[in-house]
Amino acid sequence: MTHPSYLAAIDIGGTKVTASLASKEGILVKLYQPIHLEGNQESIPKQVHNLIKESCRLSQVNPQNISALGISTASPFQKKGPHRVVVAPNLCHGIASPSSLQKNNWKEIPLESYLQANYPQLKMDNDCIAAVKAESLFGEAQGIHNFVYVTWSTGIGMGCMVDGQILHGKNGNAGHGGHIYLSEEDSNCFCGQSGDLESLVAGPVIARKYHSEATTKDVFQAFRQREKKAQKIIHRASHFFARGLASINNLLDTQLFILGGSVFLKNQDILLPLIEKEFQESFSVLSQGVQVKGTSLGTYLGDIAAYSLVLPPTWIQEWQKSKPWQKAPQAITIN
Amino acid sequence: MTHPSYLAAIDIGGTKVTASLASKEGILVKLYQPIHLEGNQESIPKQVHNLIKESCRLSQVNPQNISALGISTASPFQKKGPHRVVVAPNLCHGIASPSSLQKNNWKEIPLESYLQANYPQLKMDNDCIAAVKAESLFGEAQGIHNFVYVTWSTGIGMGCMVDGQILHGKNGNAGHGGHIYLSEEDSNCFCGQSGDLESLVAGPVIARKYHSEATTKDVFQAFRQREKKAQKIIHRASHFFARGLASINNLLDTQLFILGGSVFLKNQDILLPLIEKEFQESFSVLSQGVQVKGTSLGTYLGDIAAYSLVLPPTWIQEWQKSKPWQKAPQAITIN
Repeated sequence: MTHPSYLAAIDIGGTKVTASLASKEGILVKLYQPIHLEGNQESIPKQVHNLIKESCRLSQVNPQNISALGISTASPFQKKGPHRVVVAPNLCHGIASPSSLQKNNWKEIPLESYLQANYPQLKMDNDCIAAVKAESLFGEAQGIHNFVYVTWSTGIGMGCMVDGQILHGKNGNAGHGGHIYLSEEDSNCFCGQSGDLESLVAGPVIARKYHSEATTKDVFQAFRQREKKAQKIIHRASHFFARGLASINNLLDTQLFILGGSVFLKNQDILLPLIEKEFQESFSVLSQGVQVKGTSLGTYLGDIAAYSLVLPPTWIQEWQKSKPWQKAPQAITIN
Repeated sequence: MTHPSYLAAIDIGGTKVTASLASKEGILVKLYQPIHLEGNQESIPKQVHNLIKESCRLSQVNPQNISALGISTASPFQKKGPHRVVVAPNLCHGIASPSSLQKNNWKEIPLESYLQANYPQLKMDNDCIAAVKAESLFGEAQGIHNFVYVTWSTGIGMGCMVDGQILHGKNGNAGHGGHIYLSEEDSNCFCGQSGDLESLVAGPVIARKYHSEATTKDVFQAFRQREKKAQKIIHRASHFFARGLASINNLLDTQLFILGGSVFLKNQDILLPLIEKEFQESFSVLSQGVQVKGTSLGTYLGDIAAYSLVLPPTWIQEWQKSKPWQKAPQAITIN
């Protein structure tokens, strides 16, 4: 008799970790927790491990029956011996530029080496590269060979498929398109640069430009009430975001941009028309016919992205039919 | 008895066409002619055809014995029926922005369809994509799986290899990295954009910023004489060029930039140190260890690039040993 088989999926962003567990039949549970940015460099690996254990407990799954773990995470990565460590400036404040609100002094996170002991079948990739996998298997990009996924959230990230291949680059860091330069503006990015896309349009930047105590939500709310300052800030952010897309398109000759991330998804009605208008003003020979649309995988994209890294072929076929993200349980928040 | 076999190579840039002819043993002849931008949209195809005929005449080769033609050309391309047409704004003034000095009103060049009648074994690619092929076969990138070739000339173009694959994109237009935005400056590009890399640093832009009658050569000459205005212009151009490389590196996670093009090659001693210094100021996790160097294929890169598109495997092995570009004849200029 074979044991039932489960997959675990972890999605790590700038502010949260989510964990979920699935069988071939669907997603059993999803946990959401603010990310642990204090303690030592094993804080996040430990948090991940605990969230998986808690997911197992809540769904009455024996951890031994988890056959593989997919991790979709903010990056970049660096090679360190046989493993890769995460060296994302927004998580590792020891390498962030001085503008960062430092909560720790780590320079790297040993995610892979820490977790591989318990989950030998571990596959880790950048969150946007994983999203490209998910979009090509289950989303808007099925059958499309040239497309780019872009997240607009706490940071800006991208994942690229060109000529049917997902781009990885020498250390798996392709897609850090949040750090393409767009302006001479003296905006400070966590990465140490000034004038790059992320430093101009990321969620916290929009909030800070409006008011030192404001949230991104406040700014969009003010925009909806036709408040001048909010309008100016959001128009300008959309302008840069669209110029970022145009730059990527001119370099990669793509066919489709799929947009996700909390800033975009919560304000798609405002942002999509502004982006499309500006994008069409770029090099017309290359921009004509290029589509820009929101992800159809919604708030489950991050989880599906992580699962996509480890899904067996038979599960893929089953999930393409059953679309488990449409009937997945609501996330349980853990503080 | 088999006939001797020859290859023809055409390299089309913003200001010139070169034609050359080779046997397995080496390059027989190279012709150089200013590009024909007047007449009708068949002017350039006809010029190419005439240059090949003239190459044959000068080297006493029977045109029937040309087994294949490789064309490395400025682009972009657009699909038109079974063929692709060239729609480069700097050659097709009918689509250039108003800032262009219009010499014609073509909107496309039917290069492929015009020439295929005489050269059924025709392979055409963007000049920088072809250069990537050449660099990976014969140049600095042998054995390297992640690198970008960048030309700095009348325009700026790029060709990218990622994970061992040359990027083409949906219409073979990947690598138009001259049109990534870098500034809010109101600089007009032929392509219709403002503030993109090409509009900030291309050869004619450097010249125009110095003096309405100046050539790029004049500006570098003045730089060498420590002339303030020239220094400022060249520092600023290098600044943007390096930020362009950093943007590409952050997106593609590359290992090596190979630089070519007349502006760079003639002034490598000035430009390379300026570029390297600025490049290292970008996102350090991604920029550390990335190499920036000039092409070692010199002024023959464009020809070797065009040959690379059609070289049979046995010729490749032979040329890797014999390095025919090192003993190729000087170009003959035809007016």
